[in-house]
Amino acid sequence: MELKIYGLKLGEIKENDNIPEIICQYAEKQIGGLREKDIIVITSKIVSKARGYIFKEIIPSKRAIKLSKFTGKPLKLLEAIIRNSKNILAIIPLKKILEDSKFPEEFTQDRESAIELLNEESCIIIAETKDGRLATDAGVDMSNVPNDFFIYPPPDPDKEASRIREEIKRILGIDVAVIISDTEVNMYRYGSTDIAIGASGIEPVSRCFASLDRYGKRKFGGVDIIVDEIASAAALLMGQTSEGIPVVVIRGLDYKLSDKGVKDIVIERKFIRKGLILTMLETILYRIYSVFV
Amino acid sequence: MELKIYGLKLGEIKENDNIPEIICQYAEKQIGGLREKDIIVITSKIVSKARGYIFKEIIPSKRAIKLSKFTGKPLKLLEAIIRNSKNILAIIPLKKILEDSKFPEEFTQDRESAIELLNEESCIIIAETKDGRLATDAGVDMSNVPNDFFIYPPPDPDKEASRIREEIKRILGIDVAVIISDTEVNMYRYGSTDIAIGASGIEPVSRCFASLDRYGKRKFGGVDIIVDEIASAAALLMGQTSEGIPVVVIRGLDYKLSDKGVKDIVIERKFIRKGLILTMLETILYRIYSVFV
Repeated sequence: MELKIYGLKLGEIKENDNIPEIICQYAEKQIGGLREKDIIVITSKIVSKARGYIFKEIIPSKRAIKLSKFTGKPLKLLEAIIRNSKNILAIIPLKKILEDSKFPEEFTQDRESAIELLNEESCIIIAETKDGRLATDAGVDMSNVPNDFFIYPPPDPDKEASRIREEIKRILGIDVAVIISDTEVNMYRYGSTDIAIGASGIEPVSRCFASLDRYGKRKFGGVDIIVDEIASAAALLMGQTSEGIPVVVIRGLDYKLSDKGVKDIVIERKFIRKGLILTMLETILYRIYSVFV
Repeated sequence: MELKIYGLKLGEIKENDNIPEIICQYAEKQIGGLREKDIIVITSKIVSKARGYIFKEIIPSKRAIKLSKFTGKPLKLLEAIIRNSKNILAIIPLKKILEDSKFPEEFTQDRESAIELLNEESCIIIAETKDGRLATDAGVDMSNVPNDFFIYPPPDPDKEASRIREEIKRILGIDVAVIISDTEVNMYRYGSTDIAIGASGIEPVSRCFASLDRYGKRKFGGVDIIVDEIASAAALLMGQTSEGIPVVVIRGLDYKLSDKGVKDIVIERKFIRKGLILTMLETILYRIYSVFV
């Protein structure tokens, strides 16, 4: 059993660039071409750049001004977040939380810089994006673009993945799977990993909940989020080299073809809310029960 | 830029088996041997099996009986969870939450089986394990072991990783990185991915928070959890083939040597609690502020 993971070094992507064509060309030059059943992982940033999902020099609204007064976060960033959100769900006061933690010392190359940045951006906003996901700062990103430019993730990443897959089929006559990836913070660890926000041509999860194990017992589990694992694997090449590898090709994985997208595995907001409330209640009840029974 | 990921097919691991020796042998046979700077990902389950981290036919305590009355979860499983916990932090009433959701239909191969299993195990317990991580059911696992046997994760996975790394160094004279992986549920998606619970010989995260981007702006982010991304990449080979691949070798990744472990990147419980409370307060305040100001 063997997988190969190739990073494609592309040039800077500009608006109206044809991503599928560029991928086919660079794959030809750098890895001898794409093959049937390859999985192509593409960072959402270049999809957004090519498709023009960019807010350019935006003027803040009243709501952004309000939110900026409350959070102290940069005004134009807030306007971009608002424009890319259906709902602002929570505000995480990062600076306050990390007081007395080892974060500034341990996770940065320059402690002073980190503290200054935490002063400028003292909180993280959790928002529901236009495509119904939860995302930090609504997925809006301002790194590696000019000042006052804000990139936002594709409004329908499954559709972008499907479009790119179709186009590659047209150009090369082969069927590949396409995953659009993005970086998201982790709840239990200091840091972030890449996840899939869009997919086409691959079953996003293994549907093995309650399958029988070798001893004939039903397995409580067995739903691997394959597309997230693929996005994470790709990030190993995308993330550590300082830019220049926005596309990764994974070869050799035996996956199931599917027309489902990432949309189908996202827990809907109502279940997250219901889950949080019921979990809090159940936990409080249990504490009371443990004391008195 | 190219990574290779090899799955090693091992036989059934038994108590007192020498994992490092077995890995060296099977790597020799199946992939022509290990090399300097290879990353070896090992599922925690075989480490636990070899080291005897197994509760065998345990007798439930009064506390387990109490908890079982409250949660309806199997008695012996609860005893195993209690034995492997420092604290029970939350109870997630999964069955209630997933009522009216698409879960039983969409994520299983057999709807009836799934519903029956959700009736038997209607909730998930979030506990702090002995090594200070948050884990579903305290990391206790009963699949693919005989009835009434419960496997628990190594009490100090960083140390197990380091022990295996040292042993491979002794046998082959080369330095590899070792990661112990486990499966954990995801909060935003229906399913689970693999994470690193122990590591040795590799910097667990890239420490680039507040580094400058190409436009000279400080990057809010840049802390990739490399060890989790590696565990996820390995899971692509471990998870989908029906067992038999508990060890994966990753070759070609340019990583930094380090003696830090996973312990160093886990957010301490006090910050998680502080984070949750401050986030709730900040969010409520913001809602009030938005209405009145």
